[in-house]
Amino acid sequence: MADETVHREPDRREGGTDVSRRRFLAGGVAGSIAPAGVGRGSPPPTPCRGAPMNPRLFTFVAGTAGPWAVERMDVVAGEALPAAKRLDIVEGAVTGRPAGAAWLLRGVTSNERYVTRAEKDRLAAKQVALGRPAATRAALIPIRKSAKWWALTQDERRAVFEETSRHVRTGLKYLPAVARRLHHCRDLAEAEPFDFLTLFDYAPTDGAAFDDLVAALRATAEWKFVEREVDIRLARAD
Amino acid sequence: MADETVHREPDRREGGTDVSRRRFLAGGVAGSIAPAGVGRGSPPPTPCRGAPMNPRLFTFVAGTAGPWAVERMDVVAGEALPAAKRLDIVEGAVTGRPAGAAWLLRGVTSNERYVTRAEKDRLAAKQVALGRPAATRAALIPIRKSAKWWALTQDERRAVFEETSRHVRTGLKYLPAVARRLHHCRDLAEAEPFDFLTLFDYAPTDGAAFDDLVAALRATAEWKFVEREVDIRLARAD
Repeated sequence: MADETVHREPDRREGGTDVSRRRFLAGGVAGSIAPAGVGRGSPPPTPCRGAPMNPRLFTFVAGTAGPWAVERMDVVAGEALPAAKRLDIVEGAVTGRPAGAAWLLRGVTSNERYVTRAEKDRLAAKQVALGRPAATRAALIPIRKSAKWWALTQDERRAVFEETSRHVRTGLKYLPAVARRLHHCRDLAEAEPFDFLTLFDYAPTDGAAFDDLVAALRATAEWKFVEREVDIRLARAD
Repeated sequence: MADETVHREPDRREGGTDVSRRRFLAGGVAGSIAPAGVGRGSPPPTPCRGAPMNPRLFTFVAGTAGPWAVERMDVVAGEALPAAKRLDIVEGAVTGRPAGAAWLLRGVTSNERYVTRAEKDRLAAKQVALGRPAATRAALIPIRKSAKWWALTQDERRAVFEETSRHVRTGLKYLPAVARRLHHCRDLAEAEPFDFLTLFDYAPTDGAAFDDLVAALRATAEWKFVEREVDIRLARAD
């Protein structure tokens, strides 16, 4: 609860990156109330004490820097994203334009919206965390769903997601080979170009299996609601 | 989709308010990709073109200004909010500290998470929008739920919400007297002190009914997961 972000001023002359750092403070009002007037990225009139950052926020910076080399960017639906050679995955916020950045996307991990307890227990028994040493291949897949999807009620969305499209059942087949982390963008304060960013990683020998997984999902009724999707394949470069 | 926010520089000498304005532009890349480096509230190196704002964002500014007089602020659970005389409800973002602001809270309206189609249809047949001329009383009720709630799966949360606590069924009894708008804060980029902000309005003669509604909800199993709640009662002052 006392997780507070301290902001450094980005170096605007050099297009410097301000990656927010988290500091654990012993309580304090700033951690419990959204501070008025010290917005993320705003130059505070008093010494640098910024708004506390959501500890579940991640920023994906595409450009010329970062440990992941972009091997392919395929447009599955809708508009493309500008080309980039590298991807950096930053835990937290990025303010200021990093030198050479082609685009930034960000999202927060959150509570699950569709899985049942039985499904979650089955997933928990098999799933693994991102970052295994052998997982030198990755995919970042930003997706936006249609207004029609978001106008459905919870029971209708769940029915499409699992009873019809078997999203969880399909995903389960590829565990523990493929690790996955889902980030939500739809309810950020800014209008984001995607609703979700899903990051996957896997060993090079599991690349074909991963292709099968995304192909299976894209053939489902759920994917009829996907109006923008870019499939960004990555290889660890350092 | 081409909804773009134009930022004015807040007047820092006078603690001026920068209420983002929306402008409809004819397409353009800025509306489709989160621009790198031009964060909300940051002074852009080039003329004022900011990040596009989520059109579902609302900011509640408590202090000395605004059309709503704060009549009472009761702590139902957890920590209080600082006292304030007035409340302003701003469509969009507020950057810069408004003069006299005691606190700011913000959230986005979003898709519904629990109601079924049958419930939504029953609600739609009775519910009304905020802002009826006779609705000169209002309540803003910020709530934070516990980590235990968020660790539940969707089916478990739904069971507590409706099958056990009858949240929708109870709410329906008070329609159309009470209008309601729910704002989500949990998945914003900053760590917000509450998960939800619910705004209600009603005529003075429906004040007792509104008291019955919140009392009924607070007696449910769902409310055992509420770890912070402040009940802010408002009267239209202008």
